[in-house]
Amino acid sequence: MTDAPDHLVVFTPSGKRGRFADGVSVLEAARKLGVDLDSVCGGRGICGRCQVQVAEGSFAKHGVESHADHVTPWNAVEDRYATKRGPLADGRRLGCQARLCGDLVVDVPPDSQVHRQVVRKRAEAHPIEIDPVVRLYYVEVDEPDMHDPASDFRRLQLALARQWSVENVRADLAVLAGLQKTLRAGAWKVTAAVRNGGELVALYPDFRERAYGLAVDIGSTTIAAHLTDLTTGEVVASAGLMNPQIRFGEDLMSRVSYVMMNPGGERELTASVRGALDDLVGEVAREAGVERMDVLEVTVVGNPIMHHLFLGLDPVELGGAPFALTIDGAYEARARDLGLSIAPGGFVFALPCIAGHVGADTAGVVLSEGPYLKDELTLLVDVGTNAEIVLGNRSRLLACSSPTGPAFEGAQISCGQRAAPGAIERVRIDRDTLEPRYKVIGCDLWSDDAGFAGATAATGVTGVCGSGIIEIIAEMWLAGIITQDGVIDGSLAARTPRIEANGRTFSYLLRDGEPRLAITQNDVRAIQLAKAALYAGVKLLMDRYGVSRVERITLAGAFGSHIDVTYAMVLGLIPDCDLAKVASAGNAAGTGARIALLNAASRAEIQDVVRRIEKIETALEPAFQEHFVNAMAIPNKQDAFPELEKVVRFPEPKVLASADEGGRRRRRREG
Amino acid sequence: MTDAPDHLVVFTPSGKRGRFADGVSVLEAARKLGVDLDSVCGGRGICGRCQVQVAEGSFAKHGVESHADHVTPWNAVEDRYATKRGPLADGRRLGCQARLCGDLVVDVPPDSQVHRQVVRKRAEAHPIEIDPVVRLYYVEVDEPDMHDPASDFRRLQLALARQWSVENVRADLAVLAGLQKTLRAGAWKVTAAVRNGGELVALYPDFRERAYGLAVDIGSTTIAAHLTDLTTGEVVASAGLMNPQIRFGEDLMSRVSYVMMNPGGERELTASVRGALDDLVGEVAREAGVERMDVLEVTVVGNPIMHHLFLGLDPVELGGAPFALTIDGAYEARARDLGLSIAPGGFVFALPCIAGHVGADTAGVVLSEGPYLKDELTLLVDVGTNAEIVLGNRSRLLACSSPTGPAFEGAQISCGQRAAPGAIERVRIDRDTLEPRYKVIGCDLWSDDAGFAGATAATGVTGVCGSGIIEIIAEMWLAGIITQDGVIDGSLAARTPRIEANGRTFSYLLRDGEPRLAITQNDVRAIQLAKAALYAGVKLLMDRYGVSRVERITLAGAFGSHIDVTYAMVLGLIPDCDLAKVASAGNAAGTGARIALLNAASRAEIQDVVRRIEKIETALEPAFQEHFVNAMAIPNKQDAFPELEKVVRFPEPKVLASADEGGRRRRRREG
Repeated sequence: MTDAPDHLVVFTPSGKRGRFADGVSVLEAARKLGVDLDSVCGGRGICGRCQVQVAEGSFAKHGVESHADHVTPWNAVEDRYATKRGPLADGRRLGCQARLCGDLVVDVPPDSQVHRQVVRKRAEAHPIEIDPVVRLYYVEVDEPDMHDPASDFRRLQLALARQWSVENVRADLAVLAGLQKTLRAGAWKVTAAVRNGGELVALYPDFRERAYGLAVDIGSTTIAAHLTDLTTGEVVASAGLMNPQIRFGEDLMSRVSYVMMNPGGERELTASVRGALDDLVGEVAREAGVERMDVLEVTVVGNPIMHHLFLGLDPVELGGAPFALTIDGAYEARARDLGLSIAPGGFVFALPCIAGHVGADTAGVVLSEGPYLKDELTLLVDVGTNAEIVLGNRSRLLACSSPTGPAFEGAQISCGQRAAPGAIERVRIDRDTLEPRYKVIGCDLWSDDAGFAGATAATGVTGVCGSGIIEIIAEMWLAGIITQDGVIDGSLAARTPRIEANGRTFSYLLRDGEPRLAITQNDVRAIQLAKAALYAGVKLLMDRYGVSRVERITLAGAFGSHIDVTYAMVLGLIPDCDLAKVASAGNAAGTGARIALLNAASRAEIQDVVRRIEKIETALEPAFQEHFVNAMAIPNKQDAFPELEKVVRFPEPKVLASADEGGRRRRRREG
Repeated sequence: MTDAPDHLVVFTPSGKRGRFADGVSVLEAARKLGVDLDSVCGGRGICGRCQVQVAEGSFAKHGVESHADHVTPWNAVEDRYATKRGPLADGRRLGCQARLCGDLVVDVPPDSQVHRQVVRKRAEAHPIEIDPVVRLYYVEVDEPDMHDPASDFRRLQLALARQWSVENVRADLAVLAGLQKTLRAGAWKVTAAVRNGGELVALYPDFRERAYGLAVDIGSTTIAAHLTDLTTGEVVASAGLMNPQIRFGEDLMSRVSYVMMNPGGERELTASVRGALDDLVGEVAREAGVERMDVLEVTVVGNPIMHHLFLGLDPVELGGAPFALTIDGAYEARARDLGLSIAPGGFVFALPCIAGHVGADTAGVVLSEGPYLKDELTLLVDVGTNAEIVLGNRSRLLACSSPTGPAFEGAQISCGQRAAPGAIERVRIDRDTLEPRYKVIGCDLWSDDAGFAGATAATGVTGVCGSGIIEIIAEMWLAGIITQDGVIDGSLAARTPRIEANGRTFSYLLRDGEPRLAITQNDVRAIQLAKAALYAGVKLLMDRYGVSRVERITLAGAFGSHIDVTYAMVLGLIPDCDLAKVASAGNAAGTGARIALLNAASRAEIQDVVRRIEKIETALEPAFQEHFVNAMAIPNKQDAFPELEKVVRFPEPKVLASADEGGRRRRRREG
């Protein structure tokens, strides 16, 4: 007898090669060589994930003559698959069915790779590979046998070990409680969802190939959830709702006060946010047509107070110095312990907090934007009631938060409102006539376009939202209505009736009618205070880093997504920078949660990065005050904006006789 | 400058020795040498656990001149300790306060060792060391600092790592929820209860040195709990109550039937047993004067159905072949997930099940009796509705269960009842007159003693309990009232009116009066069937092991504790053996739970032993039937009892004309 012949197989694109005996399947060969070829059903011809393309021809480069008939012919299992799931693309075979009978070059198409890359790339950083913490394994489990008293769970463990090399799987009682029924309902063929290669989180009585996870961003105002296919990385349903904690207080500090005043109030706040998130689970599951039980993992970002309240940790210490967190590291808990009804053994992973004021939301932004992967010195700003600021690059990262207050969200502004249809979000002021024109959310026309009144009849024009406030004050400065110090020039009342006196100060009338919308001196002051706090925080980080300019600026969060970055720079929220490198990142925190959902390694990565971030406590820095005072000016008393001035014509410096009352005095004198 | 002198220190009884610099404390020296010297407070002079005795004199053996003044003098910290906690024994010092200033021989008394040995010894096996899974650590935690945003938990982790080398402790949210308040209430000095060196299960705002655990035996009829001091091994409170599942069915199978007939019924049964156990936690805690929160760990044994129901696992599959367990290995779950209110992060450890009919209770017996540690071939029998039987020694262990039915518990017996005051538990029959005398539970007098009627007036004489049934039937055989085949000899009606005809069979009148107690032919048959099943199981194991006799027999469980082992052997429940080596072990299952509570290593040990046990399924063994038939005879048709015959005089073999009706026929002929 002679030895059976063996065949040379080369896989592309990896280039991995090896010799195998006659009759070995392409899938087996790929496994032995460590080629990234997917399979959920374990070679049973059910899942179709192991599709490969057999190359035709002579490959001198590989030294292989490859032909379609160098594998066994199309078989009945493939027929069954094609009938059920549709025909395979031309030249494709199921890798588990095609067996070697000659030398071969086999291409593994991208959709057959386990570790596909998510389409979205982090700018100039490495792309995210799909490699979630939970994977599905289809197994056939031995039936119980009177001669061998091994439990059902032990036989499942053995099946996973033998068929998938997944060893010593553990399971929570919630999963074990349904184990026997599921095994019998599936006639001992089941799909196991295994987390981190070690914990059974769900068991299905049939073949499954779709697994889902939920990425959640818990904001003070809204909670957003994105149901994500853990196989493709695709978001299959999104939903958001108001954070019901709002009934306990509009902003974070009033919610902390509620807890301080009402013993046990933290439990109400916790129940409220958990209930809302569980409702969202139901909503996105319904929308995507999947069961709650198909959701295997949840990742969460949020500011420190939301993060703690969701986890059931009392936030009271976060309400005052020294702002001690209960926990800072990434944290995993059973979803059911957090009131979420998903897969019985499913987990929630909360990203780490950076400091008492810099939360898991910022960690999400850092993971999403990846400044630690770049040489470019990047400034990340997430503006909310607190601005959370990160500065750095590959070699060093710094972070702080700065108390901007709610002015950017339209609070404390006489005509301010939340971003909603009818709110003014864009403003232009004519440099000569000082006449404004504006756009409102929900309408693409400017206020001086024909048809604007009709188009906005339904919503009305109701107020000015955060991004509108930024633009109007920047435009007021560019039009010479306010000085560099932020004083409304009362003398302009002579040129336009839009400048109106209010006691000792003046205001600018944006819109006459119902409601009447004017920007008062107090409104300007509120924005100045907010933007000065933000800028002073940025400057502290730049000082600490030892730089006088940054190379890239990314604005994160809802506010950051809506403002025009040029106006933000005109007003001096952010330092000078090439405007081509200033951008909004949208909900970068939520993207960070999605990355943590799709890529297991990213969890250790962000945990590690966060530990390395140097935290600056703005309240303790003596330089803060000076930076703050300089930043009260528009754009800044000290700092130049050469890049900005290439694009925007700054007004002539204007000095009034006396800061606050100058206008009025002059008017009195003139009058 | 010369080097500071160093001193030779020898610790007894370990003999460990080393040289240390001047001023090093005895505790530090002990730690460096790995001497087993306890400390909970970490050398702060609070706990008094590190007490040592400084030896006086010249120790040629060690080459040391040791004197009391070779350590620093008694100090203020020791004064404070003695004032608060009482004076130290003569010559004792706190090891953390006494610092070296000369050579020394130091004795570590047993009560200062961490790994004290529990007094109770496993016969001829190694004794159990106290080394529980949970230990207490007193730590001082850094206060929060604005310059360092480390969370409270991270600072606690660091304190445990620095002060106790306990690294990377984890904590459940239930523990973390109270963390900040506890740290502040304790002014940053707290006692941490850490499980397996890695998980924080409780945190106390003060110095604690007592930790408690609960060993639980969940029986079908009763649940027993023993609150145990994890430091001393002492049981500080015990309590038991009826298993409230009894309202769903008296025996195991009727409870499984309840679940089969009532979908969701398993949840009722689970809630019922968990509620009862949680009540017991409260009861033992109250009795011992400790808080529920001071109970750090629970260990549980029980038969497979109780084990599964307590864990919330549906027992239906255990109700019929192939008797598939959901899980068989040891299992840990959070106490709160099992409805038990103990320390917030406390765990329950359930011992492993051996097979579908051989449960964690038997694993407890095996752990307690340790047959796997001996050369002696030991037979362990735990008699209940099922007899659970283990045979083996160091080299091999076998187990099976045998369906004895409830006869041994007094069920199916016309005059049977549960063991309770008023139940007959001891019986003697005069060989000549065939007159009986008996004792009842709750009274030390025999029924023919003066004063018996008065002494039992309160309880009455109400029936015969399990151990009474064994004795009466054994005595009936010894007195010649029944044949080896178990037939009541009707011809004896001629000699005594206590033999009465009932239709075609006869009965023996044990007691005339109210109630009238008689042993019927059916009663004898029921006991024969039960004991034959038990003995046949034993024989199967002996066959499999390849032996014809055993060297030691231990009876476990409530029934095993009460029966007279000699009568058990006379009746042929157990095989022949030197009676000096046959004993009751009391609640050995519960003892196993207590061992698992006190000694961490025992958990891996029993897990490992159970995996090695060979399980025999009696129903599948062809030889069972033959063994069973032989064992219907008293004591046995085939097997000899030479050891027993040294002590007990067997009656002359008696053969009636025809098995069941012989007596009656003969009487008819005679009459």
